[in-house]
Amino acid sequence: MNGADRLCDTLLVNDVDVCFANPGTSEMHFVAALDRKPQMRCVLGLFEGVVTGAADGYARMADKPAATLLHCGPGMANALANMHNARRAWTPMINVVGDHATYHLKHDAPLTSDIESLARPMSHFVRRIATPEDVGPAIGEAYAASLSLPGVTTVILPADCAWGSVEPAELSATKVPALKTVDAAAIRDVAAALRKHGSRAALMMSGLSLRARPMEMAARICAATGAQMFGQMSNGRIERGAGRVALPKVFYPVDMALAQLKDIDLLILIGAQAPVGFFAYPGKPGPLTHEGCTITTLAKPGDNLPGTIAALADELGATLTAPAYIAPKREDASALPTGTLDADKVCTIVAKLLPENSIICDESVSSGRVFYQQCHNAPQHDYIQLTGGAIGEGIPLCVGAAVACPDRKVIGMQADGSGMYTVQGLWTQARENLDVITVIFANRTYQILHGEMRAVGVNDFGRNAKLMLNLDEPALDWVSMAKGMGVEAGRATTAEEFTRLFEAALGRKGPFLIEAVI
Amino acid sequence: MNGADRLCDTLLVNDVDVCFANPGTSEMHFVAALDRKPQMRCVLGLFEGVVTGAADGYARMADKPAATLLHCGPGMANALANMHNARRAWTPMINVVGDHATYHLKHDAPLTSDIESLARPMSHFVRRIATPEDVGPAIGEAYAASLSLPGVTTVILPADCAWGSVEPAELSATKVPALKTVDAAAIRDVAAALRKHGSRAALMMSGLSLRARPMEMAARICAATGAQMFGQMSNGRIERGAGRVALPKVFYPVDMALAQLKDIDLLILIGAQAPVGFFAYPGKPGPLTHEGCTITTLAKPGDNLPGTIAALADELGATLTAPAYIAPKREDASALPTGTLDADKVCTIVAKLLPENSIICDESVSSGRVFYQQCHNAPQHDYIQLTGGAIGEGIPLCVGAAVACPDRKVIGMQADGSGMYTVQGLWTQARENLDVITVIFANRTYQILHGEMRAVGVNDFGRNAKLMLNLDEPALDWVSMAKGMGVEAGRATTAEEFTRLFEAALGRKGPFLIEAVI
Repeated sequence: MNGADRLCDTLLVNDVDVCFANPGTSEMHFVAALDRKPQMRCVLGLFEGVVTGAADGYARMADKPAATLLHCGPGMANALANMHNARRAWTPMINVVGDHATYHLKHDAPLTSDIESLARPMSHFVRRIATPEDVGPAIGEAYAASLSLPGVTTVILPADCAWGSVEPAELSATKVPALKTVDAAAIRDVAAALRKHGSRAALMMSGLSLRARPMEMAARICAATGAQMFGQMSNGRIERGAGRVALPKVFYPVDMALAQLKDIDLLILIGAQAPVGFFAYPGKPGPLTHEGCTITTLAKPGDNLPGTIAALADELGATLTAPAYIAPKREDASALPTGTLDADKVCTIVAKLLPENSIICDESVSSGRVFYQQCHNAPQHDYIQLTGGAIGEGIPLCVGAAVACPDRKVIGMQADGSGMYTVQGLWTQARENLDVITVIFANRTYQILHGEMRAVGVNDFGRNAKLMLNLDEPALDWVSMAKGMGVEAGRATTAEEFTRLFEAALGRKGPFLIEAVI
Repeated sequence: MNGADRLCDTLLVNDVDVCFANPGTSEMHFVAALDRKPQMRCVLGLFEGVVTGAADGYARMADKPAATLLHCGPGMANALANMHNARRAWTPMINVVGDHATYHLKHDAPLTSDIESLARPMSHFVRRIATPEDVGPAIGEAYAASLSLPGVTTVILPADCAWGSVEPAELSATKVPALKTVDAAAIRDVAAALRKHGSRAALMMSGLSLRARPMEMAARICAATGAQMFGQMSNGRIERGAGRVALPKVFYPVDMALAQLKDIDLLILIGAQAPVGFFAYPGKPGPLTHEGCTITTLAKPGDNLPGTIAALADELGATLTAPAYIAPKREDASALPTGTLDADKVCTIVAKLLPENSIICDESVSSGRVFYQQCHNAPQHDYIQLTGGAIGEGIPLCVGAAVACPDRKVIGMQADGSGMYTVQGLWTQARENLDVITVIFANRTYQILHGEMRAVGVNDFGRNAKLMLNLDEPALDWVSMAKGMGVEAGRATTAEEFTRLFEAALGRKGPFLIEAVI
């Protein structure tokens, strides 16, 4: 057996059994080894951004990493933007990047590049494999590192380490360090501070604290102490819907976020970062909390976040307190919107028709501003979204979520400009017959940038600004593009048409795309 | 005026008047400044790989750099693969990457990343702007650096340096260091060595030495000394066709390349790298020359390559010698191919119908193997091709070449798998009404990898290998995809259909795509 076989076996012994791939010549032995492992599910992406975006969506829903197969430095470069999003979602991921044979690097052949320099900004663990026998340890370390931060790991696989021989060996699962427990004294200090600050305190949560149970426990803490609760602006995954916590998130517009947090004097971070503006604006502050606000990090992403919240509730005697923030079931008295379609109507219709146990992948950017709020009272569902601001993750997220959860409906809320970055992902949806409805908000513009231009004082756009901000000439025809990649599609220009298409898509399996012209 | 205005003015005073752009929020002041400069041509790409691939194609044909506008680290990450190709083509390029305001970086907002680490592997010049007044010097330095290596430069523009005030100033063009002249002693030594080795010597050329005049001068040297002449395996641009040098290039398959170079005892590099295998293969050598071959670097890409060749010819008394290698005009006695279409027939038809003064952008990968040879005798044209092996450059190259040369027909020879990486470039062809014919070799597979799998000894493909190497389920429908992006298209399954579509496309202006089903 060779190093590539060892690689596959090490993944499989750790229950990593999905590989999103875009292979090249330097990975042929890896492909051949995967071909000898029918228990490994290999999913092809026609562009590397699809591969890592799918791996991100998969791990968010499967709670375990997928492997990726990428080709040399430039192939990994194409994958970096969605590695960045995964990094910001604290998603476990094992990227395997093929490289030239170790002895070939010195020749500086055309595809040679500094892979480490490219990988490090988007990976907390980067490791170049040295020999065929080093493949197993390297992949094991990457697996453990992907789960213990958690986050994105990158392993560089020289071709000769893949094709070189290794001794057969009995493999066992890699030991993963347990999540760190937060110190009891810190719990006591935070409990005391929460008691003191009452409604002027808030919990800021992200990562695994946004699953239904820890969120409910946090909501008991809020009920007991009067504290408020927020999610980060963007998060890897939130379990939500009627009967669960209706989690307020920090707003994107700086002025709204400042107003939202203006009365908070104590902010407790649980797996979250301190809230700051997504961008800086002339004359506006970076931090979204006021200058006198005390920010305390109770637990970081690598810590046991649910355990921390439970311990805090216990310290506060709140484990049985009725939780605050619980969303009631929606009342469906109001009819669905009608008439000319707009972004808000699309959101309303999807929220009202949302099926139980669905998965929403949200890259709606400016068009979906009312959607999150509207889904508080929808049937229970998972909400995963763009985290790192690197647009082009929505379509691949749907791929990964659908691979992880084949029995659940996946709904992509997709801005058109962003969707174009990784439009190739539609083909993978067709190839794998994934149960995904993609809703395209076809406003035919980088709408968010129109707002940002106004924010910098430009209201009259000239030719060059229009050329760079509008996608209207020619209009993108998403129905044809989807058809070209094997995905059935329809176009809606009225709310009635949208409702009809969306209901039809809910009633069938497999990928479907709706171009909502707004 | 602000830093962004200064940026535009510094570009324009240096005659950099095309900006390929994919903007985001941190670049709004740059967009607003471009909007105040109607003399700057702004071309939108719907994905950053389109932007840098187009900038590469533009500069190869315009012989001056374009600027690009990219959004933060992840946006630049999407652009890196084609920066890599540009780097391998020694293409001048000025990438302007927007970043957070200097004082905002410490907050680690979601889009924050280590841009320098990402940029350096694909840029020989990376510079972060420090203040608004630093914008002008930084862009000037980048301009000079892009032309003096030549190559890819990256300037990081923090938002506050774009929006901060600068004093009005009278700008003048940046001084660019002259190309280096090769030492006369080196010329004499090489001349003597060429005389001594006769037909066992060869010139290996790339970069600016592959323009018609220096190639013809090199062919005089070959005629005078008996030396052979080769181009690198891949090159930025070759001026070719009947009456010009029919330049042999180093073959891609290792065994063929080894045979091609087996009798060469002296290899003189003129702007070229020593020939090595594109990849390493078990049991095969990396260098393509034999172990006893002497490799001498006469001139590097930053040197005056045409001047070096002229000086060498002068030293050899060959400036008036009748050149070797000149391609005769093709004889058009043979009819065009007919019947079921295959890759070779597509190449033959395009080569036979090629119009005078056209520009070929070649990313045909395995399908175009006969094409280069067939075009030796075609009417005079420019040939630009994928250089760094990072597929997904063909469609953007066409965009850039057509922007640089609006009066010339651009023909993209495009493999289907590779074309999918930056398929979004078709929209820019439509938006700008560029005169481009894209020929898609629709073999519905990563054909080159089938060969590479056999090269590693795998002949029977299982399910996983087929899943990763074939694009047939579902088949990509290029006609629909092109239509979806506003490009007219047709499909050919016979040689007659292909000829009819290609002739029709030659007879009109504007973008057209032909899906050649092979």
